[in-house]
Amino acid sequence: MELLEKRILKDGKIGKGNILKVDSFVNHQIDVAFISLLAKEFKRRFEGEEINKILTIEASGIGIACIVAQEFNVPVVFAKKQKTVNIAGDVYTSKVESFTHKNTYDIIVSKEFLNNEDKILIIDDFLAKGSALNGLINLISDAKATIVGAGIIIEKAYQEGGKMIRDMGIRVESLARIKSMKENGEIEFIN
Amino acid sequence: MELLEKRILKDGKIGKGNILKVDSFVNHQIDVAFISLLAKEFKRRFEGEEINKILTIEASGIGIACIVAQEFNVPVVFAKKQKTVNIAGDVYTSKVESFTHKNTYDIIVSKEFLNNEDKILIIDDFLAKGSALNGLINLISDAKATIVGAGIIIEKAYQEGGKMIRDMGIRVESLARIKSMKENGEIEFIN
Repeated sequence: MELLEKRILKDGKIGKGNILKVDSFVNHQIDVAFISLLAKEFKRRFEGEEINKILTIEASGIGIACIVAQEFNVPVVFAKKQKTVNIAGDVYTSKVESFTHKNTYDIIVSKEFLNNEDKILIIDDFLAKGSALNGLINLISDAKATIVGAGIIIEKAYQEGGKMIRDMGIRVESLARIKSMKENGEIEFIN
Repeated sequence: MELLEKRILKDGKIGKGNILKVDSFVNHQIDVAFISLLAKEFKRRFEGEEINKILTIEASGIGIACIVAQEFNVPVVFAKKQKTVNIAGDVYTSKVESFTHKNTYDIIVSKEFLNNEDKILIIDDFLAKGSALNGLINLISDAKATIVGAGIIIEKAYQEGGKMIRDMGIRVESLARIKSMKENGEIEFIN
């Protein structure tokens, strides 16, 4: 999506460890009007699909998911991150490894909000190694709900997550796919 | 706001320690269409005020703030929670005490996204003892930005936060103000 690629080139910053920071419009400050345009693009790409719920993960996914949810006219459920999970029988749980923060955490969703009749669109800001997305997919599988697909704002296509998830037969729509990225600010996209 | 009070009576659950859970439409599952109606009420109440940014705190505030931000046509900035703060010169930081989770944490906002020309509306889901709201106010004060007011979905008016913040001269608009709450599910509102 050209609009997004231009914005990444304009406002994205490449930090230490080859981390792409889009703090000024996605991850810390949220440019709600801009995200609305991305939401319309997700709506266009998943047009005709039956979707009754959007699933995301806290924290930075929540705002984006809520804006996308307005396009689809469905509620959002966000998986909560927990250091230690109280494995009660009333939640689905999965493990996620954060390569940015170098730790592993549990994510949970209450069984009340995810069930076998749900047709889920996953929304998240980034897809890199795919650990968070894979965790969300596990929660959906445990609930025997249907995964319609995943809508991602920025995919680091040079990392393995996108291939891994697509190889599972899951539709992944990424609005910007980064082919390569250099510390001098050069970013190449896959069209 | 009668619509919200009815929804709380219908879907709210009172848990251990007199905690009001509104997980089915605010805090875990987000009823985006319903929150849009609350957003319009915030817009009505703060009509005529100059607001250029909405500030909230992760995680559950973010979704609500994004929906409210669409009414005001402004961006959202969310304060991030951190266990240990890397007190670099490039962030504002404040301490917040969580009575629900019985811990204290730091919140930070990058100086890049908060400055002395900003006119800020704070949005959050709950106001009880006022620690989170007070933390956000500290960040805004440190940035020498202007606080236009705070829009809260549910205020536990029997706790001291609302009075404390209003006594600071800050306008607080709470859409539902709970006067009392019993474990049998009885909730009384202030009109």
